[in-house]
Amino acid sequence: MCKKGMVINMGKTINVTFWNEFRHEKINDAVKALYPDGIHAYVKSFLETNDDIKVTLASLDDPDQGLPDEVLNNTDVLLWWGHMHHGEVDDALVERIRQRVYVNGMGFVPLHSAHHSKPFKAIIGTTGNLCWGAEVKEFIWNIMPSHPIAAGVPDHFELETEEIYAEPFQIPAPDEFIFNGWYASGHVFRSGCCWRRGAGKIFYFQPGHETCPSFHNPIVQRIITNAVYWAAPADMGFNYDAGCPYVNPIV
Amino acid sequence: MCKKGMVINMGKTINVTFWNEFRHEKINDAVKALYPDGIHAYVKSFLETNDDIKVTLASLDDPDQGLPDEVLNNTDVLLWWGHMHHGEVDDALVERIRQRVYVNGMGFVPLHSAHHSKPFKAIIGTTGNLCWGAEVKEFIWNIMPSHPIAAGVPDHFELETEEIYAEPFQIPAPDEFIFNGWYASGHVFRSGCCWRRGAGKIFYFQPGHETCPSFHNPIVQRIITNAVYWAAPADMGFNYDAGCPYVNPIV
Amino acid sequence: MCKKGMVINMGKTINVTFWNEFRHEKINDAVKALYPDGIHAYVKSFLETNDDIKVTLASLDDPDQGLPDEVLNNTDVLLWWGHMHHGEVDDALVERIRQRVYVNGMGFVPLHSAHHSKPFKAIIGTTGNLCWGAEVKEFIWNIMPSHPIAAGVPDHFELETEEIYAEPFQIPAPDEFIFNGWYASGHVFRSGCCWRRGAGKIFYFQPGHETCPSFHNPIVQRIITNAVYWAAPADMGFNYDAGCPYVNPIV
Amino acid sequence: MCKKGMVINMGKTINVTFWNEFRHEKINDAVKALYPDGIHAYVKSFLETNDDIKVTLASLDDPDQGLPDEVLNNTDVLLWWGHMHHGEVDDALVERIRQRVYVNGMGFVPLHSAHHSKPFKAIIGTTGNLCWGAEVKEFIWNIMPSHPIAAGVPDHFELETEEIYAEPFQIPAPDEFIFNGWYASGHVFRSGCCWRRGAGKIFYFQPGHETCPSFHNPIVQRIITNAVYWAAPADMGFNYDAGCPYVNPIV
Repeated sequence: MCKKGMVINMGKTINVTFWNEFRHEKINDAVKALYPDGIHAYVKSFLETNDDIKVTLASLDDPDQGLPDEVLNNTDVLLWWGHMHHGEVDDALVERIRQRVYVNGMGFVPLHSAHHSKPFKAIIGTTGNLCWGAEVKEFIWNIMPSHPIAAGVPDHFELETEEIYAEPFQIPAPDEFIFNGWYASGHVFRSGCCWRRGAGKIFYFQPGHETCPSFHNPIVQRIITNAVYWAAPADMGFNYDAGCPYVNPIV
Repeated sequence: MCKKGMVINMGKTINVTFWNEFRHEKINDAVKALYPDGIHAYVKSFLETNDDIKVTLASLDDPDQGLPDEVLNNTDVLLWWGHMHHGEVDDALVERIRQRVYVNGMGFVPLHSAHHSKPFKAIIGTTGNLCWGAEVKEFIWNIMPSHPIAAGVPDHFELETEEIYAEPFQIPAPDEFIFNGWYASGHVFRSGCCWRRGAGKIFYFQPGHETCPSFHNPIVQRIITNAVYWAAPADMGFNYDAGCPYVNPIV
Repeated sequence: MCKKGMVINMGKTINVTFWNEFRHEKINDAVKALYPDGIHAYVKSFLETNDDIKVTLASLDDPDQGLPDEVLNNTDVLLWWGHMHHGEVDDALVERIRQRVYVNGMGFVPLHSAHHSKPFKAIIGTTGNLCWGAEVKEFIWNIMPSHPIAAGVPDHFELETEEIYAEPFQIPAPDEFIFNGWYASGHVFRSGCCWRRGAGKIFYFQPGHETCPSFHNPIVQRIITNAVYWAAPADMGFNYDAGCPYVNPIV
Repeated sequence: MCKKGMVINMGKTINVTFWNEFRHEKINDAVKALYPDGIHAYVKSFLETNDDIKVTLASLDDPDQGLPDEVLNNTDVLLWWGHMHHGEVDDALVERIRQRVYVNGMGFVPLHSAHHSKPFKAIIGTTGNLCWGAEVKEFIWNIMPSHPIAAGVPDHFELETEEIYAEPFQIPAPDEFIFNGWYASGHVFRSGCCWRRGAGKIFYFQPGHETCPSFHNPIVQRIITNAVYWAAPADMGFNYDAGCPYVNPIV
């Protein structure tokens, strides 16, 4: 009797890979002060306080840009942070990532400036364009509190400084719109959005500018942790990797 | 050849009825100063600058609460403004309105405090609950500029004072989320939302507090005008008033 | 450390109540043969093969129509089957159910002819109208295989006989459309649909005509089980039972 | 006073370009018998019975693959039919099409086997995968009769033979799901779906196999005509071609 298996991922380890551009942290003292071993290592540290999450680190300057087959093909959820060097990411790698999301149901969680990353644009179908500005106070409002990614999240919380990300954000209407961002500058932004593509689930989250301490915020940590559980591959009842097959009548 | 008819409503007059509670305007000088003949009469004045829109006025203290059959059954789009006296609206009237939306495709445009009106709650399936507060500056951001209701609307516009309406707004996820509201108080609100119910279309719009001049704003006027055109009944290809019929196999 | 709590409901017992009209089974031999103790008792028997699901039975002819406060207020997920006697369900009970969904996040799973039940119509905002006909072969197609309710479900499965339920089904566009039904009679039907309302989640599922053995089908059982896990109340981070409060500026 | 302009496109000519692979018609007698001058020329003939629609023909073997700048940049709505030679379409052209949809709001209407065309996949974010089979009877059910594309369309209509297109169709959940297809073979298919991307609107429609007379069906013609009106560029209130600009605080 498959009982416990009903609860997705229960008791299974979720293999997360955090891909980080990992350049700012090496050259900018302010960033280094916040994330001495890199944003990826910092996020790993809080994710792994959960026994059933295991995080592999990957970065742009690693061999195979950090995502050789043996890593990517064992990744359940891929977190992505990139900013100034999106263009260096190899197109063939982008296509392998897209395939793994669509066909194998790998979760994809682009953070902050990854709105302009090649994988996000290729997976979702978007320019990723938005408006941006200085660092100001942001309030993040929880408008879908019954969603798993909002579990334990109060009606709103404050980030004392985040980079302004402003509408119009040129994204397809999200399948689920969870967090609505308010900025002291007069701007709003859809700060937390979900989509499904192929077999995979995607969650975009606005916080995470490299010179802001957003990843230190415990609610941000809770949301990213929730997103890992939510985005983990589903227990699909059939093989979605079937291309475009010819089918015979069934009656 | 039905050619021009392809463009919905082109050349047809749209019969709008604006139902107004119409009590504030009689007892509050500030409201009376803004809308001496009532909010409904003011909205009528700008809507009727369009040759193909004709507006009937209705209010709570009229006979049959303003909506006898001969009015309701000739209404293409019903605009609604109510605030303090939602409870006085007759339940049988609410059911007649709901039927006309579901079965005949009458458009329904609840404005501002009509989030708590009986027809809105009955039509949509919602408590209509939200948070509210003082009058502050609101910016309204246009996040779906390709929508007919956003036609001609800039990326954002300012209302120098509006009543704070704040998330969590306990609505079903809108079918189309068009306008996102920012308040100087730190709040956000889904200020412009569309739903379909039965044969009808519904647009909720936040601006319109009785002591604020929002209906004098030309962009608010454009949006309400757009909404009238959008919400007008569709040219449906079959009778949706069929109840729950028994059907025979068609093969 | 809140670790395991991240996976919703993991390790917690889910209190399900199955409300059954429970009249057909007493007077119709064909129904009695399929479900000698009632549909509710039969569904209980397969749900409770899961250690963490506990099912309470309730029916129309029980005291308080089966749902006194002590039952309803301890229900995490309410399953509902009714057909000929929707009108006998007390309006005050309907309102208590609706409140529990909206405010407390109780899941609601209306089955088959519950499309016309009072709670479904009141919770969702719908007439529940559809077309219906004879008993024929139905194929159910899984069009959102990454959804938790589709876990373990093949690309399609067959019900040798089900009652024709046919479009147009006058429902709001579902938040998630999971199962698409094909009938040998030439009809289609949105056979599995999700909505969120207030704090609660709702899943409507077409199979379950009283003279068809649909609840004996193992895939139907899997789907209903999945739906119970999915619809269980979320771990919300704040109290949604706040009515419509006045709020002060937070900046 | 901008009055008439409220109704999108009213009185303006809509410039449609129909891009056709246009190879089947030259080598297959059955196709040639149905569409002697090509599918594109046939669709042009019924579209242009509307005074305000003007259709330009384009095909794969034309110079610049039929879409030089002077054509594409003057196209309001691009219809697309391709099948065996998707791979020959130039990637730079695909990107120009995508840009025109996202930035300028050009409508895009991929027909039938264009589910696998490069522009559809690039614009939407999808593999376009589906299952397919022989030619059988299809019923198309109208499940969103209040949508402009469903104007005048009955609750269902029959295509005596169409190519089986079957779920799972690996598309993002449509923003609007209008037509649900039933096949005599036991399959279902989301036969008519809308999406918004950037400033543009997209409508995918299943009928149109080259050896079936679907484009001769008057209801199919009505739907394609409706889609042209619906997909025409909106009267946007600001320039969406702004890239990803830096913005200053507005308070």
